[in-house]
Amino acid sequence: MDGELISVGTEILLGNITNTNAAFLSEMCARLGISLYYQTVVGDNEKRLKEVVKQACDRSQVVIITGGLGPTEDDITKEVTASVLGYKLVEDAHTKKRIEGFFKKYIKNQGNKKITENNWKQAMVPKGAIVLDNQNGTAPGLIMEQGDKKVILLPGPPGEMQPMFMESVYPYLHKSQPEVIYSQMVKICGIGESQVDDEIKDLLRKQKNPTIAPYAKIGEVHLRVTAKAKDEKEAKKMCKPIVRELKARFGKNIYTTEEDKTLEESVVELLSDQGLTLATAESCTGGMLSARIVNVPGASKILKEGFVTYTDRAKRKRLLVKKGTLAKEGAVSAKTAKEMAKGGCFTSGADVCVSITGIAGPEGGSKEKPVGTVFMACCYQGDVNVKEYHFSGSRNKIREYVTVSALILLRDTILQNFKRK
Amino acid sequence: MDGELISVGTEILLGNITNTNAAFLSEMCARLGISLYYQTVVGDNEKRLKEVVKQACDRSQVVIITGGLGPTEDDITKEVTASVLGYKLVEDAHTKKRIEGFFKKYIKNQGNKKITENNWKQAMVPKGAIVLDNQNGTAPGLIMEQGDKKVILLPGPPGEMQPMFMESVYPYLHKSQPEVIYSQMVKICGIGESQVDDEIKDLLRKQKNPTIAPYAKIGEVHLRVTAKAKDEKEAKKMCKPIVRELKARFGKNIYTTEEDKTLEESVVELLSDQGLTLATAESCTGGMLSARIVNVPGASKILKEGFVTYTDRAKRKRLLVKKGTLAKEGAVSAKTAKEMAKGGCFTSGADVCVSITGIAGPEGGSKEKPVGTVFMACCYQGDVNVKEYHFSGSRNKIREYVTVSALILLRDTILQNFKRK
Repeated sequence: MDGELISVGTEILLGNITNTNAAFLSEMCARLGISLYYQTVVGDNEKRLKEVVKQACDRSQVVIITGGLGPTEDDITKEVTASVLGYKLVEDAHTKKRIEGFFKKYIKNQGNKKITENNWKQAMVPKGAIVLDNQNGTAPGLIMEQGDKKVILLPGPPGEMQPMFMESVYPYLHKSQPEVIYSQMVKICGIGESQVDDEIKDLLRKQKNPTIAPYAKIGEVHLRVTAKAKDEKEAKKMCKPIVRELKARFGKNIYTTEEDKTLEESVVELLSDQGLTLATAESCTGGMLSARIVNVPGASKILKEGFVTYTDRAKRKRLLVKKGTLAKEGAVSAKTAKEMAKGGCFTSGADVCVSITGIAGPEGGSKEKPVGTVFMACCYQGDVNVKEYHFSGSRNKIREYVTVSALILLRDTILQNFKRK
Repeated sequence: MDGELISVGTEILLGNITNTNAAFLSEMCARLGISLYYQTVVGDNEKRLKEVVKQACDRSQVVIITGGLGPTEDDITKEVTASVLGYKLVEDAHTKKRIEGFFKKYIKNQGNKKITENNWKQAMVPKGAIVLDNQNGTAPGLIMEQGDKKVILLPGPPGEMQPMFMESVYPYLHKSQPEVIYSQMVKICGIGESQVDDEIKDLLRKQKNPTIAPYAKIGEVHLRVTAKAKDEKEAKKMCKPIVRELKARFGKNIYTTEEDKTLEESVVELLSDQGLTLATAESCTGGMLSARIVNVPGASKILKEGFVTYTDRAKRKRLLVKKGTLAKEGAVSAKTAKEMAKGGCFTSGADVCVSITGIAGPEGGSKEKPVGTVFMACCYQGDVNVKEYHFSGSRNKIREYVTVSALILLRDTILQNFKRK
């Protein structure tokens, strides 16, 4: 099937918000095996919206439209789409009841929202459309089928759209596909995007079914292997040798093959499996590393504590970095990083401590240590592994890359000391 | 003038990357007074790209196209656009020289990049087009003028596109506008989006010139006041009474009227102006607050240190929270927050300490303290201000809101104790 997306909203055209809905839906369509050829953004303007919807319905089999389903007069997506496709709007008793229930619950919790006459506009649906319940808001989702064409309307707020898509639309489209799509994720860390591309150039060149799609993230590369077949068993079987080949090529750099597992989750799991506790000692990242560890629910089991020692004084006081080291080698040096990691273990009693000290810029660089110079160390039960890095980009970009690199250094250190239990 | 954007790239259609270029360019167009009616994303496919470019050039005065200017065969944006508009491609000696220089510099720094035959494709430009130098890559930007229409091609990577836009395209479009556009930013914190909307409903309703555009950020609302006039002096004069009115309505909730100043910057400045030092004591945010403070270059002047005390043990050891408090009131309580803030000041020697303890979920909630319950305290030279909050959303959303709220609590505390120097 081929498809396209339409995002409706003047706030996107004004740049007030980034169109993250389009990125989410595009990835989902790729996963479903729908070839997406266009994304369009248009404002809440009847003439232009009509023209865009008409064009999309003429040229694509699946049209997903988000936004403009709110209760105000400006919200005209449903009305315009129904008119383009020749549907009449009728009140849907089930939706009306659901909206009433939603407000009752909301008023009980927050006490400051009234049902206005406007809201009943959201209970009007195109006659014959499939109505999708919204668990997180009032606007229902709608699917209109015309022959083999499907036009799908979804609310704009990501907190409403995403759960509705996953619960109702994903299974619906999955079932509509003439073939079954199965995809398997392979997440890689510690190798750059161009190197990953290089190492699978031969696979990418001859790919057809299954396909391999690389997704570059900060410090990570995700490869999605997708197969189309007549049933899931067959599709899974087709993915298997590719995933096996990727595992052979990237080995320990693959940190997970689970769809939703993050790098920090896999690191917390590694520590927890080995019964190890962690401390962090950060300078230029200022807490970004510990914050990522705490992203993982239940991280308290392994994270003893985090030190943000941005000043020399704090490095000395909390992490026992020697005065002489700071004076002779400087705060940004291999020796300081080493002492920070050792001191972090000692003072917190953690088994492992990762330390970070560097120059994130824009000021503070020198000829010997330009902006982007970062030293990290990982102390594991007394042994310290120190590394020097050179990053480029803005202050924030550098700090994000540093944080991922620290997670990777931590992961490498544990893997090197891996004990089978 | 009216305009539209076209983003070219299969990686956007696959959801591999979020289209942040569109958000950036939309905001810039709004600032320039260009009415943007459409954004389109299309892949590197000749037929579809041709159709999209043709449609855009037919209906809009300014068409900005990003992406697809790379050296490979897949990159066809320049070729397709030139053919649609009837331009011939010729080699540009200046660009060729610039590309040579770029590679020489790159090879010196990184040592792993060769000029391939492909690269000279990027020195070909539509005959008669304005060529824009790329300081951060090889592909030049291009402007083609046809009567009062302007078609602008820019490279896709944001690190190349944004500086090129700001240096060359922004002033070019600014000059092309028949009227002068002037805009003034007003950044508000501590009041929700709907309340801000409510308080300026009358201004929004009667706005015409100047206009007020609200941009909702996490925990903040930015209002952009934009006026069109025959010269800048006149436009500035028109904005003034509106900004004055906004200042009267929102008072101390306005933290800046500077375009690029962030909330954390304004807080660091406040502390620094008062000669105060800061410590942070975080539980559920795990370092997100200190990381935001360290976003500000030079934060080391005011940030003494940050404590990430996710465990009870760390709260006791580092922040001297009493065993009895943790046992009787629990780690998530007003009393624990208070002791954390006091202890943070005491142990670090900082003048001010903000503490955060809460339940970010998804586990750990109870009937009395559901997920989203957060206590924060701010200790200012011995006095402690404690507050209870209730947030909703995912673990990460909650933690982001908590972090902004902590910055706001810190700001409020300093403002209450403000001393004129």
